[in-house]
Amino acid sequence: MSRRGRFITIEGGEGTGKSTLIAGLETHFLESGQPVTVTREPGGTPLAETLRGLVLSPPSDTRWSAMSEALLVYAARRDHLEKLIQPALAGGQNVICDRFADSTRVYQRLGGLAPAVIEMLDDLVVGELQPDLTLVLDGPVEELMARRKARGGSDVFEAMPLDFHKDVRQGFLDLAAAHPDRCKVIDATQPEAAVLSDALKAIEDAS
Amino acid sequence: MSRRGRFITIEGGEGTGKSTLIAGLETHFLESGQPVTVTREPGGTPLAETLRGLVLSPPSDTRWSAMSEALLVYAARRDHLEKLIQPALAGGQNVICDRFADSTRVYQRLGGLAPAVIEMLDDLVVGELQPDLTLVLDGPVEELMARRKARGGSDVFEAMPLDFHKDVRQGFLDLAAAHPDRCKVIDATQPEAAVLSDALKAIEDAS
Repeated sequence: MSRRGRFITIEGGEGTGKSTLIAGLETHFLESGQPVTVTREPGGTPLAETLRGLVLSPPSDTRWSAMSEALLVYAARRDHLEKLIQPALAGGQNVICDRFADSTRVYQRLGGLAPAVIEMLDDLVVGELQPDLTLVLDGPVEELMARRKARGGSDVFEAMPLDFHKDVRQGFLDLAAAHPDRCKVIDATQPEAAVLSDALKAIEDAS
Repeated sequence: MSRRGRFITIEGGEGTGKSTLIAGLETHFLESGQPVTVTREPGGTPLAETLRGLVLSPPSDTRWSAMSEALLVYAARRDHLEKLIQPALAGGQNVICDRFADSTRVYQRLGGLAPAVIEMLDDLVVGELQPDLTLVLDGPVEELMARRKARGGSDVFEAMPLDFHKDVRQGFLDLAAAHPDRCKVIDATQPEAAVLSDALKAIEDAS
């Protein structure tokens, strides 16, 4: 069967376990004989990774405004969609993407950009190429922070205040509520195996 | 009088004499005691100049699609508008910009991007911050090429075929015809002093 692959995006705030889940999903797909491409945003292609560098570490001591940054992220997204995601899906690969447009929605809105601006860009750039399924990893910020600390992992929460992480969490929950057909919220405080199991069930339900 | 400065863009294909005209205008403004800021696109700010480099010389041997490139150019334009053009105009400076959105319209359309996409981005990013006046330098491509050659200047026409330069010329003429209130076409085959004189008259008429 040469059906089009599934486009699955993994979303959620810092420390929710996106990388761990993605590794588990990749292993599952490969072991069950389903071709899979794992990628990330911003980035995923050489040009988009160059833009990722400019977004995450702006040169010359200045900052992008929320709108400039959104335009850059969508330029990277377009390159990623055209050169990697679309060809992979068309070739029957399942594509798992670490963050996608929902992260732009959540973070750029917190940066002050009007939702209507983001949706206009999204219509233009992503259009019909929306993800088939978005898994939103969610949990109370304090609990995720405590867990991360107990495991001795790097402190990804450090760069921003606690309220910011709470706003990010709420942003993702609001998006999931607004798009129930596409988004599935998964309890990120569960053991890794349970998170993977919930994710696989959501993928099966969406197929 | 602390009135807002004038925002003047200089457009036209390769070899039409934009740089020469801009130098003449800058001298005229300064000598007549009118504050002036000269800038260019893509570029004009440190971040936008970084994007100019990525647009004109993409890294890693790949190319931007017309849409990705338009998004990048508009990201640069937003930074330029926010950090240089708007503050300069608000401070009473006249701003002369070497190329602006009309170049994007002409070149990205030739690259295959739908005009509606460019106008959507322009509404979003430039909005009410449109130029007060656009001077379009125009002349027959063969004549401009011959003149450039006779003067021993670098051959800016070499990179693309003759038909491309003719399409660029027509693109700018079409835009000027569509926006007669904002655009003034100037005969670029005239002696430099006559081009400058026409430009100064257009600026006076628009004031």
